[in-house]
Amino acid sequence: MATKKRTTPSIQELEKGILSGDRSALARAITLTESTRSSDKVKSISLLKKLLPNTGHSIRIGITGVPGVGKSTFIEAFGQMLTREGRKVGVLTIDPTSQKTKGSILGDKTRMENLSRDPNVFIRPSPSALALGGVTDHTREAILLCEAAGYDVILIETVGVGQSETIVRGMVDFFLLLVLAGAGDELQGIKKGIMEMADGIVVTKADGDNVKGAQQAKGDALQALHFQQPSQSGWKTKVLTTSSIENKGISEVWKVIEDYQSHADKSGYLEENRRKQQEQWLEEIIEQKFHEQMGNRVIAKMRSQLLKEVRNNKVLPLEAAEQFWKHITRHW
Amino acid sequence: MATKKRTTPSIQELEKGILSGDRSALARAITLTESTRSSDKVKSISLLKKLLPNTGHSIRIGITGVPGVGKSTFIEAFGQMLTREGRKVGVLTIDPTSQKTKGSILGDKTRMENLSRDPNVFIRPSPSALALGGVTDHTREAILLCEAAGYDVILIETVGVGQSETIVRGMVDFFLLLVLAGAGDELQGIKKGIMEMADGIVVTKADGDNVKGAQQAKGDALQALHFQQPSQSGWKTKVLTTSSIENKGISEVWKVIEDYQSHADKSGYLEENRRKQQEQWLEEIIEQKFHEQMGNRVIAKMRSQLLKEVRNNKVLPLEAAEQFWKHITRHW
Repeated sequence: MATKKRTTPSIQELEKGILSGDRSALARAITLTESTRSSDKVKSISLLKKLLPNTGHSIRIGITGVPGVGKSTFIEAFGQMLTREGRKVGVLTIDPTSQKTKGSILGDKTRMENLSRDPNVFIRPSPSALALGGVTDHTREAILLCEAAGYDVILIETVGVGQSETIVRGMVDFFLLLVLAGAGDELQGIKKGIMEMADGIVVTKADGDNVKGAQQAKGDALQALHFQQPSQSGWKTKVLTTSSIENKGISEVWKVIEDYQSHADKSGYLEENRRKQQEQWLEEIIEQKFHEQMGNRVIAKMRSQLLKEVRNNKVLPLEAAEQFWKHITRHW
Repeated sequence: MATKKRTTPSIQELEKGILSGDRSALARAITLTESTRSSDKVKSISLLKKLLPNTGHSIRIGITGVPGVGKSTFIEAFGQMLTREGRKVGVLTIDPTSQKTKGSILGDKTRMENLSRDPNVFIRPSPSALALGGVTDHTREAILLCEAAGYDVILIETVGVGQSETIVRGMVDFFLLLVLAGAGDELQGIKKGIMEMADGIVVTKADGDNVKGAQQAKGDALQALHFQQPSQSGWKTKVLTTSSIENKGISEVWKVIEDYQSHADKSGYLEENRRKQQEQWLEEIIEQKFHEQMGNRVIAKMRSQLLKEVRNNKVLPLEAAEQFWKHITRHW
């Protein structure tokens, strides 16, 4: 038992590894946060507590867009530009190999190939089983761990499925929406709610025959933004065109993000937004844990008794729920 | 105080009124279930408990479809056909006057005009403020109350906003989807999830120049259904065409519902489905009440203390949530 060789590194080893920028320690720590074993959860909280003072210094950027918009080529070009400038980039992304309809097989194989070889880049793909459009319950922990490991730009990629954008918006400083030229409906229709979340909109693939269309799409986006409520941060959403393959407009996107950062820093919004996000995170975990607590032995027994009674129409669900909560809160 | 004249009827009066089929007692009882006052909640549960033995005998039918598909004209024609056959029909519907984009002003004024004059029909519009696409937190109570008042067919109308269809599907025996001829995209695209919930699909407005298109739409729907997983009930979704203004195909819809009822009754699915719905109702209320309980004075105080700590980044939300639940469950 106690003599068995431990293959998992200790909290101390992980802490040391992460603070020295060791990518494999970072990867292992993220895996630890994703574990459902309660002993791992205790470890993971203890590790994060130690690292807390070393977190928070990065700019956290959410990147979204429909499949095919060119998210991975954009991230590749954008990430390489950043490392050329001496920055360390963490990318929390989607594992395309475990997704059904994202991109072609060829595209998947070469996805972020150059970026993944860059020593100043850490890429963490989320398996689709865990992820909702690329974001998991543990993306926030992964952000903190990347920050502790010295990454100063964190990119969180998501695809537009259900509420994943809203969730990512709730954990980043800057939210970037990639759109395709010529996909007019995309801008007006279903993506409207997402446009309202965006601090920046990038029209991708503005190269070759697409240049004119991209300009048109930029104009459309600007017009749509014109009718939008001003954002809480007081920032006016910027629209740009880029070509990832021709490497055009990429550093301009970074310029916009830096402008935003300076704007939101000055106004205090950046700080306030992060504080709110912390609160929101707590509320979310409290609610998640409520469902876990429902599995508590005593509670589960009471619940199954009540379920049986309502199932047989002996007791009204309304009444059973009253009983349930009366019991739970009797010592409050 | 005690001498003040009470204008609200007592539980006993409401019970008597409902059991004798008094529509105004029924309406008052539904209003009581919608009240947020805790004294009203106690009353409402006590009333429902008394009426419980008189509930459950109706067929509960959910009706959905996009605005403009002709839901209210269909319900008017369908309801009148049913009362002509000697049935009592309860309609839980949307109040169009409090909705922004539903139908024209003229359409609103004459909405279900004939049906609402029928003495064997009870129509209850839900104010949009309370309702998610026509369904409220208290629609289930309204169903029970209608049943106790002797209504044997209950129609629950909803529009496709967000999850309202899923919610209604979870409280009815039969789910009817109305679709428009010629709106091909409707069938394939966004409504796919809803098609899968439907026990019957009705192509509306199959009259005049639309007859051919309606037949085409019927064929499209059948083809789409062909590729669908068989439903849990073992029932094969039926597709029909109707004309509410020419009163064509309306009684055929009822025939399909009766077939379904007999099929699902024989297999035991009808009963089992209702039992599951009761359980689901309990789970929902338990969860709703969790949010109410968060407002408890002691709990709220602890929560706001923890929120402050995570806000200032002193404590990890993960850790704060652990503390929170440890405190709450200390007596479990």
